[in-house]
Amino acid sequence: MNKIYVVGIGPGAYEKMTVEAAEALKKSDMIIGYTVYVDLVKDHFPDKSFLTTPMTKEVDRCVLAFEEAKKGHVVSMICSGDAGVYGMAGLMYEVGEQYPEVELTIIPGVTAATGGAAVLGAPLIHDFCLISLSDLLTPWEKIEKRLLNAAEADFVICLYNPSSRKRHDYLAKACDLVLRYKSEDTVCGIVENIGRDGEGYRVMSLRKLRDTEVDMFTTVFIGNAQTKEIAGKMVTPRGYRDV
Amino acid sequence: MNKIYVVGIGPGAYEKMTVEAAEALKKSDMIIGYTVYVDLVKDHFPDKSFLTTPMTKEVDRCVLAFEEAKKGHVVSMICSGDAGVYGMAGLMYEVGEQYPEVELTIIPGVTAATGGAAVLGAPLIHDFCLISLSDLLTPWEKIEKRLLNAAEADFVICLYNPSSRKRHDYLAKACDLVLRYKSEDTVCGIVENIGRDGEGYRVMSLRKLRDTEVDMFTTVFIGNAQTKEIAGKMVTPRGYRDV
Repeated sequence: MNKIYVVGIGPGAYEKMTVEAAEALKKSDMIIGYTVYVDLVKDHFPDKSFLTTPMTKEVDRCVLAFEEAKKGHVVSMICSGDAGVYGMAGLMYEVGEQYPEVELTIIPGVTAATGGAAVLGAPLIHDFCLISLSDLLTPWEKIEKRLLNAAEADFVICLYNPSSRKRHDYLAKACDLVLRYKSEDTVCGIVENIGRDGEGYRVMSLRKLRDTEVDMFTTVFIGNAQTKEIAGKMVTPRGYRDV
Repeated sequence: MNKIYVVGIGPGAYEKMTVEAAEALKKSDMIIGYTVYVDLVKDHFPDKSFLTTPMTKEVDRCVLAFEEAKKGHVVSMICSGDAGVYGMAGLMYEVGEQYPEVELTIIPGVTAATGGAAVLGAPLIHDFCLISLSDLLTPWEKIEKRLLNAAEADFVICLYNPSSRKRHDYLAKACDLVLRYKSEDTVCGIVENIGRDGEGYRVMSLRKLRDTEVDMFTTVFIGNAQTKEIAGKMVTPRGYRDV
């Protein structure tokens, strides 16, 4: 049988992986992924073969996985967080159309939205949106539309890829859009290096967030109208009526 | 030290729990939760004390956890999926204001959106919204506004609590709202009993989804304009430009 597991390894630390993800890696002959993710799991699976490809070579990485599976190796393709949230699961199905003999199994994991939420307190709790600020594959107009619609409907908003060297002012731009509908006192939070060395968080107002510098290892949370700060944590109530 | 872990146990099966969640339960003297969730983990932790409260008694359940922690017991409060997504983490912080001596640690888990996505293929992948159709704690007007805004901005939409005995027509109502902006050919999917006995999925058009009967153990996925069906799976591409 030709089999590939597409595995979300969670935010970083081994313990944040599901039991099922660890078992899939144990059952695999070969583990393939972006260099940084492979380094996160390598020490826990010393007897495996590892193959890495750089960040921008995602299609090559998928083809590599299918070619190895075709040879009869059980392959795990690893992604940080969840394989199905800005991860490789979709591209694997697309590339997999050329490899009908290979069976794909997707193993879900803890994504930055829920992993980061646990560090910040309970910022999501109710309806929320995930929006990536990366305009590498998505036109900025589409991202802008989503920010405005999400803010207008008072969703909690979780921002992935809030910044990069080329996009250092994108978080400020996003906050300006959100501020058209949400109060500048809206409770917000950022989490850095979720589940990794240097993990940290800050709770602040939307006003303050607008002028905060973040990097690509930061996940940003913008509360809804009910979100509050309790004992230094960011907490969204479950609903809009008193329990 | 007075300590409570608020633990997301994932969709159901033990293997879908994170390594960290399993360790937290092992370290606990007492595990508290809604009856159904306790039954899901009981067999794996035979030496623990278990306390259960019914579905509607969430505040009582939180108070119970804090009172036991005050006595010096290490307590785990368990939630299905992720503790911070329609889970108990928020209410625990709210009730916890009365118990400043008790330390809360939130352990994230795989929520139905990502657990269900893995079963369906790769329906999320890019920007998405989670919306609960339960109007028990949220006015229907607010839910309606969120459905319309999410559809207008072409988010993938994941619906939690799509139906119940009292709300048997809510999925049809939600689809009618979404159909104001999304094509009736939009690729959709439903997953039943994620990670539990009887797990199953179907991929269908939005038109078909509108007239589909679902129950409270179903999670619903409505694609974006790019979502397609590949080999019977629901797959959303990563972006809007050719890779």
